[in-house]
Amino acid sequence: MTTGTEESRSVNFGPPRSFGTVLKSKVKETLFPDDPFHLLKNEPLGRRLLKTIQYFIPICEWLPKYSLSFFKYDLLAGITIASLAIPQGISYANLAKIPPVIGLYSSFVPPLVYAVFGSSKHLAVGTVAACSLLIAETIGELASPTTNQELYISLVFTATFFSGLFQTALGILRLGILIDFLAHSTITGFMGGTAVLICLQQMKGLLGLKHFTKSTGVVDVLKAIHENRHEFNWKSAVIGMVFLIFLQFTRFVKKKKPKLFWVSAIGPMAVVVAGCLFAYFAHAEKYDIAIVGPLKKGINEPSVNRLIFNPKYIYGPIKAGLITGLIALAEGIAIGRSFAISTNEQIDGNKEMVAYGLMNIVGSITSCYLTTGPFSKTAVNVNAGCKTPMSNVVQSVCMMMVLLFLAPLFSYTPQVALSAIIISAMLGLIKYKKAYYLFKTDKFDFIICMSAFFGVSFISMDMGLMISVGLALVRALLYMARPATCKLGNIPNSKLYRDIEQYPGATTIPGFLVLQIGSPIYFANANFMKERILRWVRDENELAMASEYNVEFVLLDFGAVTAIDTTGVESLHEVQRNLECKGMKMIIINPRIDVMDKLMVTKFIDMIGKDAVFLSNEDAIEALRFSVQGSKQVDEEGLKRS
Amino acid sequence: MTTGTEESRSVNFGPPRSFGTVLKSKVKETLFPDDPFHLLKNEPLGRRLLKTIQYFIPICEWLPKYSLSFFKYDLLAGITIASLAIPQGISYANLAKIPPVIGLYSSFVPPLVYAVFGSSKHLAVGTVAACSLLIAETIGELASPTTNQELYISLVFTATFFSGLFQTALGILRLGILIDFLAHSTITGFMGGTAVLICLQQMKGLLGLKHFTKSTGVVDVLKAIHENRHEFNWKSAVIGMVFLIFLQFTRFVKKKKPKLFWVSAIGPMAVVVAGCLFAYFAHAEKYDIAIVGPLKKGINEPSVNRLIFNPKYIYGPIKAGLITGLIALAEGIAIGRSFAISTNEQIDGNKEMVAYGLMNIVGSITSCYLTTGPFSKTAVNVNAGCKTPMSNVVQSVCMMMVLLFLAPLFSYTPQVALSAIIISAMLGLIKYKKAYYLFKTDKFDFIICMSAFFGVSFISMDMGLMISVGLALVRALLYMARPATCKLGNIPNSKLYRDIEQYPGATTIPGFLVLQIGSPIYFANANFMKERILRWVRDENELAMASEYNVEFVLLDFGAVTAIDTTGVESLHEVQRNLECKGMKMIIINPRIDVMDKLMVTKFIDMIGKDAVFLSNEDAIEALRFSVQGSKQVDEEGLKRS
Repeated sequence: MTTGTEESRSVNFGPPRSFGTVLKSKVKETLFPDDPFHLLKNEPLGRRLLKTIQYFIPICEWLPKYSLSFFKYDLLAGITIASLAIPQGISYANLAKIPPVIGLYSSFVPPLVYAVFGSSKHLAVGTVAACSLLIAETIGELASPTTNQELYISLVFTATFFSGLFQTALGILRLGILIDFLAHSTITGFMGGTAVLICLQQMKGLLGLKHFTKSTGVVDVLKAIHENRHEFNWKSAVIGMVFLIFLQFTRFVKKKKPKLFWVSAIGPMAVVVAGCLFAYFAHAEKYDIAIVGPLKKGINEPSVNRLIFNPKYIYGPIKAGLITGLIALAEGIAIGRSFAISTNEQIDGNKEMVAYGLMNIVGSITSCYLTTGPFSKTAVNVNAGCKTPMSNVVQSVCMMMVLLFLAPLFSYTPQVALSAIIISAMLGLIKYKKAYYLFKTDKFDFIICMSAFFGVSFISMDMGLMISVGLALVRALLYMARPATCKLGNIPNSKLYRDIEQYPGATTIPGFLVLQIGSPIYFANANFMKERILRWVRDENELAMASEYNVEFVLLDFGAVTAIDTTGVESLHEVQRNLECKGMKMIIINPRIDVMDKLMVTKFIDMIGKDAVFLSNEDAIEALRFSVQGSKQVDEEGLKRS
Repeated sequence: MTTGTEESRSVNFGPPRSFGTVLKSKVKETLFPDDPFHLLKNEPLGRRLLKTIQYFIPICEWLPKYSLSFFKYDLLAGITIASLAIPQGISYANLAKIPPVIGLYSSFVPPLVYAVFGSSKHLAVGTVAACSLLIAETIGELASPTTNQELYISLVFTATFFSGLFQTALGILRLGILIDFLAHSTITGFMGGTAVLICLQQMKGLLGLKHFTKSTGVVDVLKAIHENRHEFNWKSAVIGMVFLIFLQFTRFVKKKKPKLFWVSAIGPMAVVVAGCLFAYFAHAEKYDIAIVGPLKKGINEPSVNRLIFNPKYIYGPIKAGLITGLIALAEGIAIGRSFAISTNEQIDGNKEMVAYGLMNIVGSITSCYLTTGPFSKTAVNVNAGCKTPMSNVVQSVCMMMVLLFLAPLFSYTPQVALSAIIISAMLGLIKYKKAYYLFKTDKFDFIICMSAFFGVSFISMDMGLMISVGLALVRALLYMARPATCKLGNIPNSKLYRDIEQYPGATTIPGFLVLQIGSPIYFANANFMKERILRWVRDENELAMASEYNVEFVLLDFGAVTAIDTTGVESLHEVQRNLECKGMKMIIINPRIDVMDKLMVTKFIDMIGKDAVFLSNEDAIEALRFSVQGSKQVDEEGLKRS
């Protein structure tokens, strides 16, 4: 019952690992793929405790090492992002249909929380357009933001609370795996679709319309613009276009000379200041140009008593909280990670989720709405040279100053300036080049991307997202259900066996059929595998009829089979019985550790015999070619080649 | 830019295959895995036409070759299954709460249709318990089977029509892939749970209760039995137990002496006949024993005018049709396939679906309800020696005789006899040994099985099924999202590289880290892959610090990576950048055809250089070890081992 080669080359038929061992290893791979506690190994208890605290509260790690030389950079970066936070805060609050001051509040408290718990050096905390619009869409169904503003705002805080709760829970349960199911193509399409919706929404401000639709769909908005075209205010439109051209120009400058990034960073602030000055001195109301309106002084009020858990309303905030929380995580973590790559660090997604969650829970009880790490602000933060999360603290302090002393000045900001700022930001999110790249490289990814784009534009934001994720899952399930199998041949002058479709020069060995199975074998593909293997055998036998050799050994290369379930083992049994009827022998090549465990425990190995399992195709052919010769006439040429 | 080995051993960098080629090959693998038209190759047009007709209408293939010697066997088998069809037909109609004669009708028309279009030689067509109960559960919510019987029956026919339509559509669209997602563990649990429900339902008949619950849940039924315990009729119970013991004994006989299978095959018929005689001569009504009641003579009436497409009711029949249609397919096709394996044939699932679909569509317009290929009947058919689908024709003819002449006789069948028949059949479906086997071999499969079992028993049949399928999908998605990766080492005295966890004797090569990636790389696992590879590198570097070698080359063995999407390519980019920062070089080993196409089209290969792609680990190490030596001192031992 040995394989006929030396001991060290034989297959490991050791007893299957215990359930406990396997479970532990699986749980670790599934929930702790980054092995967060590896630093604790071989450390004394005191240091372990310290390292654990440092792990959970990253500020304990970086603050003691903090120096004035870092602070120079962080101060500059913090002031720069604060100057972006003011126009963005007001604009996106506008998009979420909440008072602009809440947008400013949201850049005061959450950045402080993130500075304590966050582990990314680069992330700048702030509000994002897509989630703002999604909140408006979902909460707007429950309460009107104009006629029932108190309830509307309370529901927004409640949604933020649920986002935070959900994010924290995901992080603690280490379910970061969920955001892995948002493919890049989905996010690209979703962001693009949202950007189109938001740009269309801003037509109201840009064209100075007074009546508009509550709906966000492309068709409804275009209809509303058409119906209200008599309200078109050319003065507003001219001012808006001037601002927009200015902002696009600052972006163009940044693109051409990356060193001048600050030009685009302070662009929005410049637009707001110019808008305020114009509105104040030129008396905007005379030209019928709307301004933001009263902005009261003072920092965030507590809002814990405003959270609503009334069953009548609870469903909306939960739904909005879940979807926006997930999008915020996907966006923030992807951005944190992509900047971390450039400085050769790794971001622990689950830890970040907890940081985001705490930031939003605290935000929801201090009159803030959903925040995450938006791309634009983070990029500016990095460009400005931030070194640690201290830049978020600086941002907070700046915002506090603004709230305490300067807020009323911004009440003169013209709506049209905000519209220009939003549109300019959104134009950068429509990544047509990326879509074209997807079209060129992967048609299915392109379809996934387009389904999100058109779903968001024409149906609704959540439906668009779900359709796209659904399609991506269907694709993944198809991958699973129809895994690649291929026939292997011997690469001349080597002992290697490779796909004969890919390497047409590879030759087959008379009497042998070598098949590579390309995926875990389990219920969704077990039957396909069985039929596909039998089809290969049938086709091979048809070929063989022409020559003088029959297939006697079917070698199944299991090198790529990482797992098998009981349905899979049953299918293998059926293949084996079928081959036996046809006078062929099934040989298993290189079963991997999980598969070997399962084949041992189901007694499959006992059934086919240990001498039908080999470590490599060459070992099997080496050992078995004499039995082919024994029963058939095999030409010497063929043997030499093997 | 060559790999440094001979031309024939180099990686194939040919241009990527065109989109059309790839699409064609994928569509073929996905929808036509069994390559049904391979017989048509190289045939003249006339034969092609004939073969196509024979393919779609299998009776054209076997009938011309039919001989009297076959008919002997088929006649015997047909009579045997007809004798089973009568008690089963009446019993399961009882379970579906429709008049018993419909159960008899259902063994007359559908077997004829199947004999024309079906491709399994073994399958015996008939009704099944699980679907009967599921129909009663779903349609019972819309109309009462007692007070509004006309509507109820019409809705049952409509549900059958939708089942047929759905089955035909699945077959024509070649979506047989859908039933692949019903794992064996799910079916085992579902059947077991259904069997428990059905046994409990039969307590009404067995105990002679008059009042009962409409619900099928275990809790409700136990409560109803408890509440109505004063109606308990000990005479009925005694008769029932006698019948049940007799039936179980016939099964025991069959198990001990498989040749005496006919004992168990005619058992139910014997019980019905004994029951009828007893009821007729002993005047069952005196003992308060319920009988089936009037059964009118005559064959099926057309029921096309009874189909209801009124939007008010349509949802229920569609739902029942979809679920029962899918279960019927899963059961029938699995049974057909498992018997086909024993005679070394293959069943084309998609073609079978069309046959089942047509059989149910025709059934629905000829007063039949849902039929499929039940296990018990098919096993009897095989044991009785059936040779072709002609046995179904014989069954049909027998049933026609019964309907025309004998039907009224069966109106004396006591309900308690039917209950005994059903319970006896159901006891065989509770596969506790299989559940124990799952527990021993695969804990997750066991959980999937138990979730179906308890879901069906305690919640509802459709919920139980959905929970179980959902869990199986979650498991499959986890497989995808967290694929196995492992570190490879060199097996001593060979050029093979294998998992060092599985082969602890395998040795690593100084300066190299060889990792095997175990699955397609795409959105759901791209990020995990990236982090996992970087963790292997980090761990290896920590090990390396102790020795004098640094890792210089990270070899990624792509032999098991069957596909990659754009998110996956982006992650590879990130890994490459990260390794570059650390002064390491990424080497790709043996990319397979689909992956190579994608790496070429995304210019990834151009980026890392063709000299960073090798055909095997040994080639790469052979070619690169000198550059390790060039930059570091590598001991001769290490090199010799490689």
